[in-house]
Order: sequence, then C-alpha cells, then structure tokens
Amino acid sequence: MALLVIGGVAAGLSAAARARRLDPRLEITVLEKGPVISYGACGLPYFVEGRVREARDLIVYTPEYFRKERKIEVRTGARVIAIAHPKREVVLEAGERVRYESLVIATGARTAASGIAGTEQPQVFRLHTIEDAERLRAFLGEKKPKNGVVIGAGYIGVEAADALRRNGLRVTVLERSQDVLLRRDPMLTAAVRHQLESHGVELRCGVGVGAIEPDRVAGVPADVVVVAAGFKPNVELAVEAGVELGRSGAIRTDDRMETNLRGVFAAGDCAEVNHVVTNRPAFLPLGTTANKAGRVAGANAAGGRERFPGIVGTSIVGIFGVGFATTGFSVEQARAEGFSPVSARIEAYSRPRYYGGTKTTVELVADRASGRLVGGTVIGEDGAAGRINVIAAALHARMRVDEFEELDLAYSPPFSPTWDPLLIAAQQLKKSCR
Amino acid sequence: MALLVIGGVAAGLSAAARARRLDPRLEITVLEKGPVISYGACGLPYFVEGRVREARDLIVYTPEYFRKERKIEVRTGARVIAIAHPKREVVLEAGERVRYESLVIATGARTAASGIAGTEQPQVFRLHTIEDAERLRAFLGEKKPKNGVVIGAGYIGVEAADALRRNGLRVTVLERSQDVLLRRDPMLTAAVRHQLESHGVELRCGVGVGAIEPDRVAGVPADVVVVAAGFKPNVELAVEAGVELGRSGAIRTDDRMETNLRGVFAAGDCAEVNHVVTNRPAFLPLGTTANKAGRVAGANAAGGRERFPGIVGTSIVGIFGVGFATTGFSVEQARAEGFSPVSARIEAYSRPRYYGGTKTTVELVADRASGRLVGGTVIGEDGAAGRINVIAAALHARMRVDEFEELDLAYSPPFSPTWDPLLIAAQQLKKSCR
Repeated sequence: MALLVIGGVAAGLSAAARARRLDPRLEITVLEKGPVISYGACGLPYFVEGRVREARDLIVYTPEYFRKERKIEVRTGARVIAIAHPKREVVLEAGERVRYESLVIATGARTAASGIAGTEQPQVFRLHTIEDAERLRAFLGEKKPKNGVVIGAGYIGVEAADALRRNGLRVTVLERSQDVLLRRDPMLTAAVRHQLESHGVELRCGVGVGAIEPDRVAGVPADVVVVAAGFKPNVELAVEAGVELGRSGAIRTDDRMETNLRGVFAAGDCAEVNHVVTNRPAFLPLGTTANKAGRVAGANAAGGRERFPGIVGTSIVGIFGVGFATTGFSVEQARAEGFSPVSARIEAYSRPRYYGGTKTTVELVADRASGRLVGGTVIGEDGAAGRINVIAAALHARMRVDEFEELDLAYSPPFSPTWDPLLIAAQQLKKSCR
Repeated sequence: MALLVIGGVAAGLSAAARARRLDPRLEITVLEKGPVISYGACGLPYFVEGRVREARDLIVYTPEYFRKERKIEVRTGARVIAIAHPKREVVLEAGERVRYESLVIATGARTAASGIAGTEQPQVFRLHTIEDAERLRAFLGEKKPKNGVVIGAGYIGVEAADALRRNGLRVTVLERSQDVLLRRDPMLTAAVRHQLESHGVELRCGVGVGAIEPDRVAGVPADVVVVAAGFKPNVELAVEAGVELGRSGAIRTDDRMETNLRGVFAAGDCAEVNHVVTNRPAFLPLGTTANKAGRVAGANAAGGRERFPGIVGTSIVGIFGVGFATTGFSVEQARAEGFSPVSARIEAYSRPRYYGGTKTTVELVADRASGRLVGGTVIGEDGAAGRINVIAAALHARMRVDEFEELDLAYSPPFSPTWDPLLIAAQQLKKSCR
C-alpha cells in the first residue's frame, strides 16, 4: 500500500500525518512543488507588516521533521504535471513517475488575476507563498513606495492593506464587486469601509481592473500593487485525470473526501466541502477547513472510514485592531440559499462600561418559518472570535433562536456584560420569528 | 391584577421589567430592603481594587428610572418581614401591608458566616452590597492595613484577594474545603493556587475558621478580613409562607419558576434552577441566571406562559489577568452525578506563537458510554470566556465529543491558532470515548 499526496501545506500534510497515525507501516510520500512546506499562509500579511520578523517563523514543520518523526517522505520542488490514474501514477516535471495506490489531491488554489494585464511588472506582488511575502517586504524596504494599491477586498486583500498602511503607505483597495470579504452583506461592507477609511485606507467597490500601469491602477497612483483577487482552485491536474468538479469549479467529493475516482481523495483549497447549514456542497477555502478535511481524506486514503460532516463558513479577519467575524449566511446569502431570512442587529458593550467595554456589533440571521439560526456577524475590538464561535457551534447544532437566547454564557466584568451581546441580539431576533 | 416583587437587584428587576413588557397596564411594585437597587454586585471587587472609581458607576438603574420609564413602583428601604399568602399580602417592617395577586420572591442570598465568631469587629467586612464595598474601601484608605485575610475561595473570595493584593497588602485566602471556586476539581484548584501564589497571595485549603481575632485569623496575621464564605439563599420568608425548598436548601420551582404555591414565583440567588446537563434541579447562584430566570418568573407572574430550560453552570473569574472559566461538571462532579466521566486536558497556544499567543489550558469532560460532553474548563490570559462559551453552547445542544471536534471555529493569527485549543482537547478526548 502506498499513499501519495500532492501538496505540502495544510490539507496535504494533515492528510499524510493522519494516514500515518492510522497505519504505521503505510508508505507515504508528499510532493510539494514549492521550496518549503507547512507554512502559515495566513501569517504572510503579518510578515509584510513587520510584526513577524522572520519568514521562517511562519514555517511550522520541515521536511526533515516529517521524515524523521513521522516517517513520511516529503519532496519539495516536486511539481506534478500529470496524474495517470489508470496506471495509478503521477508524472513529475522532470519526467519521473511516482506510483500510488491511493492519492490525495491537495493542490490548493492560486490568485489567478486572469484578465489583468501588467501583473509581471516588478512592483506587482501576490501574497500567496513565503517567497511572495519576502519579495514584497524587500521591495518595501528598498524602494520605499509611497502609494499602494490592493486589488481585491477579500481576507488577504484587507490584511495586506492593513499591513501596507502600517508601513506608512497611502493605500487604496479596489474591489470588483460591491461586497468585501466574499460575503454579500451591505452592513458588513459598510463596517469594513468605515474601519478602513478611519485608518486612512480608501476602499473603492465596483472597480474592475483591466490593467496595471507602471505608476497607477484604475487611475489611482500606485508604486506598489498587491493582487489579491481571483482566487481559483488548482484543479487542472485533477480534471485531466478525470476528476469531476462541483458547481463552484472546485473538486467535488463525497463526505469521505473521495472524488468520483475510486482511491482518489481531495481536500483543501482545491476542493468543495459540505455546508452544514444547507447540507449542500460549498467552496470556502480556508486553512481550518483544509486541515479538517485533509485529516479525513488521509484517514480514508489509508483505509479508514471517516466522514467529514462539513463546515458552517466561520471566519474572522482583523482590520486595524477590530475583528470582523462571520459564520453561516448573511441575509442576502440566506435568501439565495432558499431561506426566508429575518435578522436583528444590535450594538452593545463587550464588557460593563465601568470595566472598559468597547462597542460590539452582533447580527443574527434566522429562517423565519423554523426559527433556526442560519448565520451571524460579530464586529468588535475584543471577544469577536469567541462570540462568532458560539454562533458557529449553534449552527452546527441547528439551534433555534429561542434556544440560543437561553444559552448560559460566562459572565464576569473583566470578560463580558451580564447580558452578553449575543443574547441581546437573540432577544431582538426572537421577536421577528413569531 | 397586581404584581409584587420582593428584591430589587438582578432577578427582581428582570421580573418586573419583563412583566411590564407583557402587560402594559399591570400594577407592578418592587420592594427592596436596601437603599439602592440594580447594582452590579459582581463589580464590587473592582471598586475595592480601585479600578472602578465611583460606587455609583456600578448602579445600572435608579428607582426613578423604573418609575418614569417603566411605570414600575420601586420602593427602597422596604423590608418585608412576612408573606401572608392566604391573604395575598406581605407585611413590611413598619407594619404596612401590601396586597398582591401574584408574587415574585427574589430575596437573593447572603454571606452567612455562621459559626464564625468575631464578625462584628470593625476590621471585618463582607462584599455583598455597595455599602459593604464602600466601607471596605474607606477602611483601606484610612487604616492602611498591611495584612489581609479572605475567608472563602469562591468567586468573590478570590476576586477580593486580587483586589486587596493590588492595594499592596499581603493576602492569605483561607478555604474550608479542599477546592476553590465551589468546584470539586483538583486541577482547577492547583491552577488557581499557582496563579494566586505567583502573585503573592497565599491559599490555604482545609482551614475552617472558628473565630476572627482582633489581629489574626486561624493564626494568620490580619488587620483586615473579608468574609466571603457560607453563601446561603434567603429563604426564611418563603419557608414561613409555606414555600417548599429543594434539596439544595434553595427554593424549588418548576420550569415556569413557580413555587409550590400557585401565583408565587421565585428566581435569582434564592432559587434553584434546572441543570440542562442532568435535567435535575441545581443551586448555582449567579447574576446571569438571576436575570434569565427572573424574566421567566416575571412573564409568568404577568399571566404569560414561558419556561426556563435551565443552565449548564457556566462561570468565569479573572485572577491577576488570567481567566478561569468552567461549565458543566468536573470529572469528580460528573461522577457524583452518575456519569462515567472521561477527560482530556491539553495546553496549547491561544494564538500562533509568531503572533504572541499565550498558553491556554483546556479540559473537556465527557460521558464515556454516550460520548456526550458534560463539562469543561478553560484557563488563559486571552480567549477563555469565548472558549468556555463554545463548550457551554455544546452542553446546551447535548453535543458529543466527535461532533464537537468538527466545529468550524474562526481562525486568523490575531485571534486563534489554526487548530483551536478546544479542538485539540476534543481530539484527545475522542480517543478515550471509544
């Protein structure tokens, strides 16, 4: 039995490690096209910012670690150019062929930026790999650019804007759609806009970029440009091998993370997962999902029988010290998914005012007919991550608003007010669910 | 229809306000024995510490507010000395009789300190009312005591120790039992001890105090003493009126917060509530529970039909900057409740180390046979409240460990690591549940 994993970041390494746990004798090989493995891609903006001093601090494990401690062969610089599934082998760029009995495709995603001309200029960067971040940081130090443009207002985009601004640049974010953070949610967009603009970052929505000029983008002066738009799953290898895609364009899998090809699994930013709120496939590429789905893929690729129940779409991003956290669906998204959404939005203090609480916004979204919670948003300086996670747990449990309202949450002045903002929002929303 | 509420702090005022919402014309009177209403008793230690400057900052509402804005008559200094239920009236200390059709008993609790001699000396304080806190703070300012002893290592006890220590005193906490924070949990006690002692506060467990001497307590030098032990529900009025108590000694109610007497409700620190994990009555007097149960009592006293599903026993206390949070049962408590508990305890970083994460301890307790979570503990400098609340939500939802392990929790370096400590603990615990 031999397991081959394509991709050495979150999903791929989770799969390999989990397979090893289940089968101490399985032959496991991980092929990574880049020079390093196991890096926290989500940490790159903090390296650009300067908060993280050394890029190597973002690397969690080395190939040597996997070789020695896990007996997993990890090969870097090993780019796969084809999967020949009938023969159960992959072809490397150099011509070498590697056999497998089971295969985990964890090829990740890329910032495609397709349709944008001029991305090959020296002042244009992506923020996807450690080398990307090192090149950008070196450029900031050497060229001392004054005006930065970020294309795309997704997570990496707003984090990059925050990082550039903290380096003293004037920063403009250009976003093709009307929404930020990949969520159709005017309230969230307005809140993010307010936070960016009150820290000197301009946000322009509805601006599609056709070309990056040497000194400007869409009319905005720019001597450094970060392209953080057009996130696309790397599925070409899989498609050529006969792997089917879902409607999102990412690889379709069952709840064991197996593709339509027997013995071929997929996980991470290249694959769909089940959305627990709708019980339908979704493409929400995040590191946490990659790790969880990767584990399940690895377990099953090693002969186990595990299932991945799926995600509820929880995420958080920090913008100039405020957390913007979401889970499940916004009102607009819930409607598109077939719910009849009702929502309540409240502003309350994160802690008693006498203990220095700050204003926290909570929005809860429920399905009017069933009263079931289907989403939420929390925005605040402190406690946003904890609060969104409580909503996430409620979504997993298919909790109704009236049940959520009764949650016995922790109270003590240094941590929260007597009525947690979550419960105040639930009390409001309950009135709309009758 | 006339509603009378005895007690003007958390439960009583929640009941009155909720009753008003349901019935705009109901005659509602609140009788409070003390001089002020609606104060955050949980904030008293922070006033003693000096962080909260003015005691009045702890007062949320005034009687005038209730009179004007809610049309609720609030009488302070109105001590009830008897409930004459057959006549449906209460007797005040001054002899006055007040009629009711429905009654909410929210008489709270007290620090009984029964069996301790010498509590009437000038250097001995309680920390139950605003006057208690003001007297203690004045004493600290005027007498400049050097050695403080706190009797009782419950929430108020450890918070008082923290507050005294921050005022420069040498502090010793004496606790009769072997446990702190009212929880049979050696791990928690060890962690609290370590935190107290590393900040110069001595903790002595298993020390029963018979008498407070003028300059010492149980052999420990003491020129100021805070009695925070022997918390007892104020049930005497209720008992004399024929209200039955539960096994805990607090007032027994049904899930509508009604006592055995028709039309007489009880809520707050004088009453039991349902424990969701066991579905049995429990006495866990906390402000959050008082508010929630008070609302239900008020709604039903006003003719509504609401039920209070109950609590899971969530609480948190801050000790020198670290949050100690618990919910559900410890291993020892779970065993006493008839479960066959298994547990896992892990230590992990609250955020990636490159982003300044600090060590967080998570313990999860489950029932071996069913795999159902029955309790948890989180100890950490940041994120403890949010994390305990996720466990609390899981207890409400009767979640199993394998379900909890799959929770889609928010991740971003400023807020949490890729694998949240909660999920790492669940992965560990799952191994014991098979």
